[in-house]
Amino acid sequence: MNTARYIGNGALEVVDTEPVPPAPGEVQLDVAYTGICGTDLHILHGAMDARVTMPAVLGHEMAGRVASIGDGVEDWAVGDPATVMPLVPCGECAACRVAASHICYRLVFLGIDAPGSMQSRWNVPADALVRLPADLSLQTAALTEPTAVAVHDVRRSGLAAGERAVVVGAGPIGLLIANVARSAGAEVVVFEPSERRRRIVESLELVAVDPLAVDTAAWVDDWTDADGADVAFEVSGTAAGMGTAVGCLAARGRAVVVGIHSTPPAVDLFRVFWRELSLIGARVYEREDYEEAVRLLAAGAIPSETLITDVVPLDAVTEAFRAMDAGESMKILINCDS
Amino acid sequence: MNTARYIGNGALEVVDTEPVPPAPGEVQLDVAYTGICGTDLHILHGAMDARVTMPAVLGHEMAGRVASIGDGVEDWAVGDPATVMPLVPCGECAACRVAASHICYRLVFLGIDAPGSMQSRWNVPADALVRLPADLSLQTAALTEPTAVAVHDVRRSGLAAGERAVVVGAGPIGLLIANVARSAGAEVVVFEPSERRRRIVESLELVAVDPLAVDTAAWVDDWTDADGADVAFEVSGTAAGMGTAVGCLAARGRAVVVGIHSTPPAVDLFRVFWRELSLIGARVYEREDYEEAVRLLAAGAIPSETLITDVVPLDAVTEAFRAMDAGESMKILINCDS
Repeated sequence: MNTARYIGNGALEVVDTEPVPPAPGEVQLDVAYTGICGTDLHILHGAMDARVTMPAVLGHEMAGRVASIGDGVEDWAVGDPATVMPLVPCGECAACRVAASHICYRLVFLGIDAPGSMQSRWNVPADALVRLPADLSLQTAALTEPTAVAVHDVRRSGLAAGERAVVVGAGPIGLLIANVARSAGAEVVVFEPSERRRRIVESLELVAVDPLAVDTAAWVDDWTDADGADVAFEVSGTAAGMGTAVGCLAARGRAVVVGIHSTPPAVDLFRVFWRELSLIGARVYEREDYEEAVRLLAAGAIPSETLITDVVPLDAVTEAFRAMDAGESMKILINCDS
Repeated sequence: MNTARYIGNGALEVVDTEPVPPAPGEVQLDVAYTGICGTDLHILHGAMDARVTMPAVLGHEMAGRVASIGDGVEDWAVGDPATVMPLVPCGECAACRVAASHICYRLVFLGIDAPGSMQSRWNVPADALVRLPADLSLQTAALTEPTAVAVHDVRRSGLAAGERAVVVGAGPIGLLIANVARSAGAEVVVFEPSERRRRIVESLELVAVDPLAVDTAAWVDDWTDADGADVAFEVSGTAAGMGTAVGCLAARGRAVVVGIHSTPPAVDLFRVFWRELSLIGARVYEREDYEEAVRLLAAGAIPSETLITDVVPLDAVTEAFRAMDAGESMKILINCDS
């Protein structure tokens, strides 16, 4: 079988490996498609070399079918379509004890801390499987993981139908959040400096605004008749984006911190105090988010055709990472059957 | 009657004025005691000259008795002990519409935007009155307003019995928060760099730690067996204090932003994301907080003897502000009957 592996120094290799039978409690998946995530790019850039063990099989956005079943696994049959929630929590830490095992202090993330899905066959704990409906295409289903991120972010915001939501940043996760928020009945505006990305937002019949061309707080005041927005999603990972998110909110507004802020940005805590805002961290997803993501994908509520800009064979993985790096693609899927 | 007024340039004057009868819908209070708040000091320092109209009668922490009653006011009788929730909302803005009228966009704050209680007789809208129990001393009752701030802060945190709470800063509000949190059944630790203030914290049988002498995050990890604290109250208004608050929290921990951050501090949003923290703004109080504050004061749950460091006559108001400025006093009450 084919396996793509990160070997350090910005390089991936594709090698022929022998499949290993699933251990007790595991399921072996026949991986159909694996998406490339921003985290995979970070790993390729060496930013997580201290965390990953090389050679490292990346990949955690996938869909496939059950290929074989380890001892003690019930409820699954060979051929069942499935995706994977790639989180293995310890079950004992403070996060696990408050029913937030998805942010377990000793979390093992499949595809980062353990082998991922950029291989033809992937053994995973049966607990990590999430069932897919038979009529959902496996390409579309490969978007379950990033869609679950967006579902989690929207759920953390407490967004209600009729509320006004600002999304700061229109990469794949920002676009997904905008769609999930719209599905939840919100009015949505997306701030995005890239004209190309704004065009994509507009092609989905969402409003896109260039934050460099307007005073974002004044724009939102105009839009909301001076009320402010109810919810903002900070998906840019930039200090300016966080300024936009905090600066546009109404009294008791909620800003969800989705983007990775490697450098602590200056945050207008006076405004947080004055308007009694909440800034809410949101990381990965819980099982209910995964199940909702599958429902939304099956219902056609997620524009998978717009999001999936390319599908390439596994031996083109290096070129696919390069294309993602160049920023011209939304989501590239690797065909792992190839 | 005597009235203390801020006349600009860091000066207060005490003048003899004629009491005005209460207008329809108003009540005239015989003011017994008025506490000096940090905001009053800010005003004296000229920091709010653009907002206050001079000469300005300051004061919004008070207790007294009903002296006379305007037309159309029911439920109150001359002699009734009362305090005032000094907020007059517009009733129409986005904050008022989401039942957060205490942070109304056009809020009139009595004692800042309209005359306050540093005078012998004070006319206020009857809606602003809050009833006091007959057996609660009016000196103690003058702490209702700052106690209500603390009650509101604790309520915004969602603190539950058995949770571990960190209070950053032991000024009057920090001390009140620590006491209210303890009353709610939390384990409380107070971080405070001033040795004098730490002694006061310890005299109330609370744990006080010098944040300059320890690694605060490591200290909390030790205290909580690596879990982290459930709640942190940032009452210092400093970047370092916010760093302590965010740095000590457990997964899904809540940091309440109470202190005034005039300069946006750098905030570790990566940790907010990673541990799914919530940073929650909390400003003033709502009526239920006032009522709970009166209950706590009447129950003896608030150490009023420790908090009230001095009681002085109205004509010593300038000296009282100077003593507050020197930082040697917790809370000075002005006897407005004098």
